[in-house]
Amino acid sequence: MKIGFIGTGAMGQPMVGNLVKKGHAVVAYDAVPAALEAAVKLGASGARSAADAAKGSDLVITMLPSSSHVEAAYLGPAGVLEGAAAGRLCIDMSTIAPAVSRRVAEALRTRGVRFVDAPVSGGVPRAQEGTLAIMVGGEAPDVEEARPILAAMGSNVIHVGAVGSGEVAKLCNNLIAGVAAVAVSEAFRIAEGFGVDPKVLTDVISKSSGNTWVMEHMHPVPGLVAKAASSRDYAPGFTTDLMAKDLGLAVNAARELRVPVVVAPAAQQVLRLASSHGLGRKDFSAVYQFLRPSSGEAPV
Amino acid sequence: MKIGFIGTGAMGQPMVGNLVKKGHAVVAYDAVPAALEAAVKLGASGARSAADAAKGSDLVITMLPSSSHVEAAYLGPAGVLEGAAAGRLCIDMSTIAPAVSRRVAEALRTRGVRFVDAPVSGGVPRAQEGTLAIMVGGEAPDVEEARPILAAMGSNVIHVGAVGSGEVAKLCNNLIAGVAAVAVSEAFRIAEGFGVDPKVLTDVISKSSGNTWVMEHMHPVPGLVAKAASSRDYAPGFTTDLMAKDLGLAVNAARELRVPVVVAPAAQQVLRLASSHGLGRKDFSAVYQFLRPSSGEAPV
Amino acid sequence: MKIGFIGTGAMGQPMVGNLVKKGHAVVAYDAVPAALEAAVKLGASGARSAADAAKGSDLVITMLPSSSHVEAAYLGPAGVLEGAAAGRLCIDMSTIAPAVSRRVAEALRTRGVRFVDAPVSGGVPRAQEGTLAIMVGGEAPDVEEARPILAAMGSNVIHVGAVGSGEVAKLCNNLIAGVAAVAVSEAFRIAEGFGVDPKVLTDVISKSSGNTWVMEHMHPVPGLVAKAASSRDYAPGFTTDLMAKDLGLAVNAARELRVPVVVAPAAQQVLRLASSHGLGRKDFSAVYQFLRPSSGEAPV
Amino acid sequence: MKIGFIGTGAMGQPMVGNLVKKGHAVVAYDAVPAALEAAVKLGASGARSAADAAKGSDLVITMLPSSSHVEAAYLGPAGVLEGAAAGRLCIDMSTIAPAVSRRVAEALRTRGVRFVDAPVSGGVPRAQEGTLAIMVGGEAPDVEEARPILAAMGSNVIHVGAVGSGEVAKLCNNLIAGVAAVAVSEAFRIAEGFGVDPKVLTDVISKSSGNTWVMEHMHPVPGLVAKAASSRDYAPGFTTDLMAKDLGLAVNAARELRVPVVVAPAAQQVLRLASSHGLGRKDFSAVYQFLRPSSGEAPV
Repeated sequence: MKIGFIGTGAMGQPMVGNLVKKGHAVVAYDAVPAALEAAVKLGASGARSAADAAKGSDLVITMLPSSSHVEAAYLGPAGVLEGAAAGRLCIDMSTIAPAVSRRVAEALRTRGVRFVDAPVSGGVPRAQEGTLAIMVGGEAPDVEEARPILAAMGSNVIHVGAVGSGEVAKLCNNLIAGVAAVAVSEAFRIAEGFGVDPKVLTDVISKSSGNTWVMEHMHPVPGLVAKAASSRDYAPGFTTDLMAKDLGLAVNAARELRVPVVVAPAAQQVLRLASSHGLGRKDFSAVYQFLRPSSGEAPV
Repeated sequence: MKIGFIGTGAMGQPMVGNLVKKGHAVVAYDAVPAALEAAVKLGASGARSAADAAKGSDLVITMLPSSSHVEAAYLGPAGVLEGAAAGRLCIDMSTIAPAVSRRVAEALRTRGVRFVDAPVSGGVPRAQEGTLAIMVGGEAPDVEEARPILAAMGSNVIHVGAVGSGEVAKLCNNLIAGVAAVAVSEAFRIAEGFGVDPKVLTDVISKSSGNTWVMEHMHPVPGLVAKAASSRDYAPGFTTDLMAKDLGLAVNAARELRVPVVVAPAAQQVLRLASSHGLGRKDFSAVYQFLRPSSGEAPV
Repeated sequence: MKIGFIGTGAMGQPMVGNLVKKGHAVVAYDAVPAALEAAVKLGASGARSAADAAKGSDLVITMLPSSSHVEAAYLGPAGVLEGAAAGRLCIDMSTIAPAVSRRVAEALRTRGVRFVDAPVSGGVPRAQEGTLAIMVGGEAPDVEEARPILAAMGSNVIHVGAVGSGEVAKLCNNLIAGVAAVAVSEAFRIAEGFGVDPKVLTDVISKSSGNTWVMEHMHPVPGLVAKAASSRDYAPGFTTDLMAKDLGLAVNAARELRVPVVVAPAAQQVLRLASSHGLGRKDFSAVYQFLRPSSGEAPV
Repeated sequence: MKIGFIGTGAMGQPMVGNLVKKGHAVVAYDAVPAALEAAVKLGASGARSAADAAKGSDLVITMLPSSSHVEAAYLGPAGVLEGAAAGRLCIDMSTIAPAVSRRVAEALRTRGVRFVDAPVSGGVPRAQEGTLAIMVGGEAPDVEEARPILAAMGSNVIHVGAVGSGEVAKLCNNLIAGVAAVAVSEAFRIAEGFGVDPKVLTDVISKSSGNTWVMEHMHPVPGLVAKAASSRDYAPGFTTDLMAKDLGLAVNAARELRVPVVVAPAAQQVLRLASSHGLGRKDFSAVYQFLRPSSGEAPV
């Protein structure tokens, strides 16, 4: 199949590589020349614009860093909408605001172009292995049409609901994971202050109401879970900057829905602070390092 | 064995009942006459003070509602310290500040009286069944001496570390559980705003990085987990008031240790607000109800 | 002068009235028929669209409820951009995201149309009196050209800086005022808990480092400041919903700038909660009512 | 008059100096030998304990760093209670939990010793000048008896209410001032991100609803207010550590009163974080430095 692929940055490249391996003809575009070149080296042909990549392709995939990039790539000058033939299916695999997914889908729909959102989780390593988890929002026939292509990039493809629902699922999952990482860090800093063995505490909590995936697999205290980022100096994994972005998208969606939220913005802001103070490129579990006790002599 | 039992409120009563059933002679005391009477009906004999309950007992157990109650019961006028013979072991099963456990232990130690902290989890139903989880802090020989008695009240007795460590473990676990309940509630309110099916979202998150014990067993959205409090109008379970208390103890411990914490106080305060607005006696997962969207027409 | 006026809701109407009184010919448009009719009753003529109102006018004024309304009114189908002649000046008096002001200004600029942002403060009463405070962002000659028209609606017109700066000034001011209202409410609830006379406390704070405009003029405790909203059952004034909106705009701007903020989102969310629980149409100082102590018997 | 003075640290020393200058015979005690020596050099005689300083004095003054220090100095072994004759008046000038002031007052009262709380504001410079502001809680006759002595140390002595009310007033004032400093810092960081001139913004806000004492006198942005700490590299002034302590006392009092608070704990924790990251000894307006934007490239 001929696939237009827009956005060949760090995540897009291995995805292009896997599509090429499966025998697809990939026409790539990225506004950054080096990113486009990398895709060409992997076997894609290069296009001059998003419209150009979409033109003549059977299917369009986008993998971009933000809501405004996605909006521009589809609806802006020389965008997908200018190139895609009526009836074509577009798959946006970026992590963006669900409301933007819906707005883009609606704009395409009025011109007969179909759209599903399909954000991924797993990061560069699983993009390379082709084992990403992919949460998809869209009409059932569109999702079924996308499924074999998505299967070239991911091993777990879930249809969540209508357009935008893939984004909602990703943001809601990451909201909980991000908050949990901060909560676990706070708990283990308190325990440390009392001299309680973190290994014993981990055992106790793992069998109780405080258990979380984050503690089991990404324990923020170094040395307790061998494969956790904390045990390799917080090399990501999923960076503090990306988690701050996703919590920000979730909190902003809550604002637009007038849903009150309190722990999500608190977690968002402490990750943002951690980023300001040098931990943006570390795994987000490095918030444990940021929450270090003050040595201040002033009495409480 | 002759056991002095101080604090025969809602939680203490079934614990006294289980001790009597195992053949222990229980001498009970509670400042509230009705609570003391209830214990006597269960087969305990009544004492006139904490000191009186401690006098002549082989072992003292306390189950009281707050740090100041515990401090007064041990160290105040007519307290345990006035009645307990040197060498006796005291087991405090209240949920209180770990620093207070340590202060009381130290005060007793100077008079040759031994102390372990052993807070419980599981609530009145599991107190009645004798299947409480009990987290114990103290010297290893003291904990081993306490273990057979604790086994009459709980089915899972864990030695966490030095005196105070039982309290630390309980507070740290509840910090994470309390924050997780708020985070899960926020995520599902956002998803609701987008019209995403909460059952599908639960399936997605349960296999991903956002999974938590709280979502699996105490899902705040009614109708998804049959045995969750949310599915019976948030009948507790563990009340909002008690979770606000435990988060408050954790946050206050952090203050004294100069550990920065951000999601714990945010969760504490939203539960406190939920209590102010009528949800104090509901299960703490009722915070989902409290976080309802505003119908405000003012645009965001 | 012939003025196209778009957005004749509750705030726009008295502004139209004042322009008419000063002898201007106002061509009004509002998507809501009743709002448009009200403007016509005040002496404006009615247009069929934003483009229609702009066409043939010497100047365009917009007063709309949100960023997306403004974006649509200028750049959407039948929007100002379709009607305004090159060289014309547009004044947006809505309270919206500064980034949207800049985006709209840039889009107009490419077509030779000029733009200033000029959000107001003072609410409906001061709009009626023509004594609004108006914070303006734009090129100096454009601001000077706008000034006589603005003087028909407000008594205090300040040029803050480049396009968007009027919005920035308004949001920054309201961020502080909104947070201060919550802080003052928290302080007086604590004082109340200790039985301290709020009048004496107000005197003490008014001479000390905690003094704020909010406490002096909008004291949240009823009965201390005669003209405060609290002394007339929190009749606005400035509603909780509008303050939640402005804090939300400020927090979202911080997100886009990657500026960490902590008290602004905390205040935003407690106002959002207060709105969810019935206080949205009350003055925002009613957050004092919302922060009532819990009567919960559970010990802390 | 013969005055026992307990707690001759950085704040206590200049207060002792002023009492000596006014002709009082000061008997000093401090657990830290260097602090006691400094008081002796200023003309005080040295005592061996708090009890010893109280014995034979007409009046006792305490100036200590925390609630637990005050409790120990009055009620612990070799404490004031062991030395003070019945009928004596004690003045505690420490900043501590109001509940502890009341507990100590009650314990003294049962032994016929009188107590007022009289915390100060103004820091070391105003302690040296004898121009501290002093907020006093106690029975009116006791406060009037204390007033001439307090006048030797401060220029503004206010009777707030019953015992503990001085502390309540100080904590409530500092709650607002501490939150305001964070809010002003957030607002000016956002304005900076948009390139708005902070001087112009200061002028706008100073005439509007966002005006605060903190912005007028302690502007966190360097260079705008000549005498502000920010204009001399945030040399205190009032340190981040001390403000974090006072916010912590206020938040903990709210916990004990079951008053929900949201901006106070948010401000407390960001100051605690700023302290953990090296700003503890700087003026608390240095939180502006801490809230620096992230340079992270990850898109929001």
